[in-house]
Amino acid sequence: MKYTLSILMLSAALQLSASSITSPSGELSLNVNVNPEGQPYYSLSYKGKTIVEPSKLGLKADETTFADGFMIAGVDTVTVDRSWEPVWGEYSSIRDHFREMAVNLKAPQTKDQPEREMIVRFRLFDDGLGFRYEFPVQEGTNYLTVKDELTEFNFPGNHKLYCIPGDYDTDEYLFSETTFTDLPEALNSYTRHSEAQRTGGNTIQTPMLMKTDDGVYINVHEAALMGYPAMLLDVDSKNFDMKAHLVPDRLGVSAYVQAPFHSPWRTLIVSDDARDILASQLVLNLNEPNKIEDTSWIKPMKFCGVWWEMFTGNQKTWAYSDDPLAKPGVTDYTKLKPNGRHPANTENVKKYIDFAAANGLDGVLVEGWNEGWEDWVSYRKNRQFLFDKPYPDFDLPALRDYAKEKGVKLIMHHETSANASDYEKQLDRAFQFMKDNNYDAVKTGYVGAVIPRSEHHTSQWMVDHAKHVIERAADYQIMVDSHEAPRPTGLCRTYPNWLAQESARGGEFESMGGNPPSHTCILPFTRLKGGPMDYTPGLFETRMSYYGEGKDSQAGTTLTRQLALYLTMPSPMQMVCDLPENYERFPDAFQFIKDVPVDWSDSKYLEAEPNRYITVARKDKHSDDWYVGAITDENARNATIDMSFLPKGQKFVATIYEDAPDADWKTNPQAYKIRTINVDSKTKLKQHLAPGGGGAIRIQPKK
Amino acid sequence: MKYTLSILMLSAALQLSASSITSPSGELSLNVNVNPEGQPYYSLSYKGKTIVEPSKLGLKADETTFADGFMIAGVDTVTVDRSWEPVWGEYSSIRDHFREMAVNLKAPQTKDQPEREMIVRFRLFDDGLGFRYEFPVQEGTNYLTVKDELTEFNFPGNHKLYCIPGDYDTDEYLFSETTFTDLPEALNSYTRHSEAQRTGGNTIQTPMLMKTDDGVYINVHEAALMGYPAMLLDVDSKNFDMKAHLVPDRLGVSAYVQAPFHSPWRTLIVSDDARDILASQLVLNLNEPNKIEDTSWIKPMKFCGVWWEMFTGNQKTWAYSDDPLAKPGVTDYTKLKPNGRHPANTENVKKYIDFAAANGLDGVLVEGWNEGWEDWVSYRKNRQFLFDKPYPDFDLPALRDYAKEKGVKLIMHHETSANASDYEKQLDRAFQFMKDNNYDAVKTGYVGAVIPRSEHHTSQWMVDHAKHVIERAADYQIMVDSHEAPRPTGLCRTYPNWLAQESARGGEFESMGGNPPSHTCILPFTRLKGGPMDYTPGLFETRMSYYGEGKDSQAGTTLTRQLALYLTMPSPMQMVCDLPENYERFPDAFQFIKDVPVDWSDSKYLEAEPNRYITVARKDKHSDDWYVGAITDENARNATIDMSFLPKGQKFVATIYEDAPDADWKTNPQAYKIRTINVDSKTKLKQHLAPGGGGAIRIQPKK
Repeated sequence: MKYTLSILMLSAALQLSASSITSPSGELSLNVNVNPEGQPYYSLSYKGKTIVEPSKLGLKADETTFADGFMIAGVDTVTVDRSWEPVWGEYSSIRDHFREMAVNLKAPQTKDQPEREMIVRFRLFDDGLGFRYEFPVQEGTNYLTVKDELTEFNFPGNHKLYCIPGDYDTDEYLFSETTFTDLPEALNSYTRHSEAQRTGGNTIQTPMLMKTDDGVYINVHEAALMGYPAMLLDVDSKNFDMKAHLVPDRLGVSAYVQAPFHSPWRTLIVSDDARDILASQLVLNLNEPNKIEDTSWIKPMKFCGVWWEMFTGNQKTWAYSDDPLAKPGVTDYTKLKPNGRHPANTENVKKYIDFAAANGLDGVLVEGWNEGWEDWVSYRKNRQFLFDKPYPDFDLPALRDYAKEKGVKLIMHHETSANASDYEKQLDRAFQFMKDNNYDAVKTGYVGAVIPRSEHHTSQWMVDHAKHVIERAADYQIMVDSHEAPRPTGLCRTYPNWLAQESARGGEFESMGGNPPSHTCILPFTRLKGGPMDYTPGLFETRMSYYGEGKDSQAGTTLTRQLALYLTMPSPMQMVCDLPENYERFPDAFQFIKDVPVDWSDSKYLEAEPNRYITVARKDKHSDDWYVGAITDENARNATIDMSFLPKGQKFVATIYEDAPDADWKTNPQAYKIRTINVDSKTKLKQHLAPGGGGAIRIQPKK
Repeated sequence: MKYTLSILMLSAALQLSASSITSPSGELSLNVNVNPEGQPYYSLSYKGKTIVEPSKLGLKADETTFADGFMIAGVDTVTVDRSWEPVWGEYSSIRDHFREMAVNLKAPQTKDQPEREMIVRFRLFDDGLGFRYEFPVQEGTNYLTVKDELTEFNFPGNHKLYCIPGDYDTDEYLFSETTFTDLPEALNSYTRHSEAQRTGGNTIQTPMLMKTDDGVYINVHEAALMGYPAMLLDVDSKNFDMKAHLVPDRLGVSAYVQAPFHSPWRTLIVSDDARDILASQLVLNLNEPNKIEDTSWIKPMKFCGVWWEMFTGNQKTWAYSDDPLAKPGVTDYTKLKPNGRHPANTENVKKYIDFAAANGLDGVLVEGWNEGWEDWVSYRKNRQFLFDKPYPDFDLPALRDYAKEKGVKLIMHHETSANASDYEKQLDRAFQFMKDNNYDAVKTGYVGAVIPRSEHHTSQWMVDHAKHVIERAADYQIMVDSHEAPRPTGLCRTYPNWLAQESARGGEFESMGGNPPSHTCILPFTRLKGGPMDYTPGLFETRMSYYGEGKDSQAGTTLTRQLALYLTMPSPMQMVCDLPENYERFPDAFQFIKDVPVDWSDSKYLEAEPNRYITVARKDKHSDDWYVGAITDENARNATIDMSFLPKGQKFVATIYEDAPDADWKTNPQAYKIRTINVDSKTKLKQHLAPGGGGAIRIQPKK
């Protein structure tokens, strides 16, 4: 491991009223001060422009308030420059370079409050800021019942906002492109999510993105969310201010913490080049290093799945029977009448195993294999599923042996119906059952209202639950792809068996109302800053009538765009979402999906504008091949692919999968061409992208 | 298994307005009717006297109300006479003899409500009544969010009541002896329990006992509590009425249930002979048969424990160190400074193993062996204990081997601090750890406020939790003694590995304020009707100063009374609570504890009056020996021990452990005598019991 560290430690004099640092490049400046009431504030500027105006810091708990009466009792600064090698990801090595300033705040005892101490630790990178609160052990504040975090993010102008509504339970929304002023109207336009509790106020979620009038991009999120609830943002549309809004439990408490304690990092990624936002590794850098010693079993993968059949209009079901009274653990499922529309059956799964084996896919996910799908209503009952009871038509020993023979891994599915409590009851057994049957990876799901009933999807208990599951999975050497879990905050660095999460509106929505082309042009700026998304790309059949939806409408994509998503939505656990029969209709285009890797040694963002377009080149971690993906929104575009990332003087062959000239997501989505050209580091390719389209390129050294 | 069954099935005509049955003996009569508003009612009489006046039946859920609009659509009656053999207990065979009446209630659809169906199933035994609600699958009521159960128990007079305050979280109270009229004053006299949430109203707990002016005893409780919250009783002191009060979760919902569903049984044990209340097996009879096929591993046991040292005034601690910042899973405990007052250390535990081996005790419980006791505050943090991490001074492999060599079983202790949620996270691992280390039994504890934070100790989720733990324990062949769990309702029949529960104010309180002598004269009439109690008898050192309590005060017992408790408080997992050194001071009295069995083939209640006295004879399950125990309240008493239970014509020798003539719990508790006399079935022994005293007898066939 490459590791360089230079330390400059300064311990400032007591009772400072202000303190400042700049980022290593000098472009970002941070100022921290305490006003006459002893309230701590911070502000941030970039290239001389104000990014964050003076914004309050602090925390309110039932026991004590860390809001005022403070003086700066000391400041420690240090410069760190080091790099680390992720187990998988966009880069083989990541530089972690920042100036840190730990501001020690002390408040003397008052009539109402004990003596208080709080450290705010700031890390200023060239691409942004992270800061967190630290509460050392101190008299009278061993425990904190946190009710509110006072952190503000006050901005100087009516920036453009790219965001989704605040919600304690789901983030499966399309993004609004709006402004501070227009945010209330934008939020009002959302239909209430059936299973979500909207917060009601002018509240949005992170990761969110802003763009200032003079072209500075700002991403606001958090890093290393553990032992604390997720943070939403309350927006003051008139003053352009935001304030932390911690997700409470249903009893109104946000967090139960014990000193010594530190909050997650609050993060701001800042640049006037949109590509820097995409390339930023700030969130991962603020997470703890990998905790898993032996990572040999963590293997990035591509997989197909028995799942999309249930989304199409053919009425296939996760359930084995249509008996709504079937109860897992009570009913004898062998005595139920099968509904005949259950794709998770032995014969069909064998076909998927054959398909995976024939096309070099590593795994096959099977949904609907276990007892409970007949009636998996959440919240209103205390057991929905059993995780070690296959349906009668799913012959697990036979499939286990068949998959092994074919060199394919079965991927487990654990839909919990958000009964996290019952999942914990069954967890060790479920994981042992997986290992006994040669499974190495699981897709978890939390659809519905949470049990324990005091909790929301993103309240502290559920954040702890997610950590418990990922740690237990690591104990069993199991890789995890979690759906409907708390949104990612870079914990995949610490737990690299957490390969992917959903935690946003994914590709599945192409069968449920559709995703506009712009959706995948904003996700990399927002959702993906927390970690890889199981977006499930690879949709070749884009007629929404195929999914029982609107008669003539189409999914928001051309076929080649779906190939490009393997580059623009990178994930080490990448799905090949469509039915084998749909790939068999387009074998030449499918070749790209067969070829494209899921793990990279380097990445170059070539073009980017939120909600508009993204062009990225990535180098395969295990060969000298490069791959390029380019997508656009609903407007056609010519992408410029500057291949200066290629090693100079070497000759390459590029295989280009492109939208046909008459391709269009609405009218002609499956029109594509494949061509081969010679390229080198001097090539500047103009590449046509159809409306809602994209392009994908494989670049191989010329033999 | 002896099994006789006679069935008389009657299907009554539709639209009955009333229906009745009598118990097999004819002494109890039950009447069920529906009033003009369609409200169902029941009433009960005994030997011609009204026991329960017409009392409402029904249930309220968010979705539907099962309260009125009903007509009796059908009545099925059946007479059952069978017997069953418990794995352990007071009897080797238990007769289950009742007349059952299932009243099918139907309500037609109305403007506000769908068509509704509810069956109330009554079982009328010679010693009382059980009834429960059954909700078949029906249109519109698949799920019920239960808010209230309407069941009433309306009594005709101002009966004497023996009860404890209603509480959602604890039952560790002394009993009041009061009346309907005086109940409010009695409830007001309780000091609020530090960790309990008193319900505030005129609410009491079950099992509770009543005595009418004309000498009829009535016990009210419930049987087979599963998938539903515990029932308290709201008391109308003026009208002498009671109404079910289901324990809600903290969100105000009592139960989430799915049809088909049935409630626990509501039970009334009725007799004009107090001894019948003690002998009644009605609650066990209403529970489901044993679900555990192989019970060879379930072994009743006597055990001593490393625990009482922490109750005495010598400042010994469960914790290994005095560092309040130690955190399990975070702190390196080997680096902590030991406090030197931690009895759960290897050397000391070996002494207890030696003591157990030398005295024929089966097991040694060790409390405070695991990480977490330095700061085990409940609710305010999310991890209190690790159940697989011994303290540095507890050499588990060495102790495991030492115990095995000595033929003694170590007993595990799992104090959860009421963090049931974290216990479930760790449960499989904790049980596997036990088996890996040769443990077969565990004492669980739930001191404090519950996590999940939506729950109370006796709300539905915690009732489910208890079932989960006991079932998982059975999977690992582990026996359980649970403390601070939902009060027992006879589930030990269904899960015979549930050997004992605390669930009342136990012997430990002799070191925390004391238990008056009457306390153990009421527990068998109340708490014990649900199942055995881990009361922890065997206290030989009764000076409360020994426990750092009041200077000259004494525990509410003489020494010989403690011997008698092994008979009057029967349990298959019976503690020998005091320190070895205290037993070594009284080796002749200790002989009784060494001899007394914990499993019985027959039991005869010879004398009984609630809160006053109990005399019981029991036959050892594995020999021809009989044992007698007699206790009194704070008044001296001459017990009459009629030995007609002995087989006629055989000669026996009785070894009598008795209070000395000048013994007195307050002034001279350790004065006892031991004498031997010849007895036979004609013997009628007058046995002196000191104030707060007792007597214990071993009766062996004469050789």
